[in-house]
Amino acid sequence: MDKFLAAAIDEAKKGLDEGGIPIGSVLVHKGEIIGRGHNQRVQKGSTVLHGEMDALENAGRLSASVYKECTLYTTLSPCPMCSGTIMLYGIPNVVIGENKNFMGSEALLREHGVNLEVRQDAECISMMDEFIKSRPDLWNEDIGE
Amino acid sequence: MDKFLAAAIDEAKKGLDEGGIPIGSVLVHKGEIIGRGHNQRVQKGSTVLHGEMDALENAGRLSASVYKECTLYTTLSPCPMCSGTIMLYGIPNVVIGENKNFMGSEALLREHGVNLEVRQDAECISMMDEFIKSRPDLWNEDIGE
Repeated sequence: MDKFLAAAIDEAKKGLDEGGIPIGSVLVHKGEIIGRGHNQRVQKGSTVLHGEMDALENAGRLSASVYKECTLYTTLSPCPMCSGTIMLYGIPNVVIGENKNFMGSEALLREHGVNLEVRQDAECISMMDEFIKSRPDLWNEDIGE
Repeated sequence: MDKFLAAAIDEAKKGLDEGGIPIGSVLVHKGEIIGRGHNQRVQKGSTVLHGEMDALENAGRLSASVYKECTLYTTLSPCPMCSGTIMLYGIPNVVIGENKNFMGSEALLREHGVNLEVRQDAECISMMDEFIKSRPDLWNEDIGE
């Protein structure tokens, strides 16, 4: 498997081990991971640190020119918040573990010229499916439903 | 002046006093402020805590039903990240201090049925105008340019 998607899955598993929502992400620049993160709703009581946001936060302050050479890997299709952030910073490439359990703002990202690659990775799908079935309340809170 | 927009401006001024970017926001539910925040790029080295995001983060975890009764006040037109977050949580009303210094994703928000009220407040305009002229580097970093 792609080592970067594997790193995003590792982040999701860390989140699950912490009692959190298993969604992970890594930001990759020129073949190196420069930010890793996972959903922090439970762990930090955060409403803005989805997996993708946590990875971007942990990457720290970067100039626009760096973002424009990055690929963001995420285990789940990015929600409107995370998609808006991808657009704000002009991240051109996003690799998505799966969109069977949740379809994010992929159409909007494509309209804005973002290249998306959806892997439909079996491990991403089963991890999220099991989580949603076990904690529908927490999942709904995380997507504003 | 509207006391809620005044509270958002107070947040922006706090940010400026801290050496940060002067953008502030408050989240209002049934006539009460339930979250206050301001841009934290300089103060916390944050790439995700724009003023609106900081207000939502400080409001803490809320059920979808609460967001759907809220109005978000912000001193400046919301960028794609903050607009995506407004859409994620289904916040129906946004009051915007001004959009002369920066036009955010207002068209996208309107398409999604969000009610926007743009005040073109003189204090918001001059505060942001002065800041952009004095720190164009920091401003460009904050909007991914």
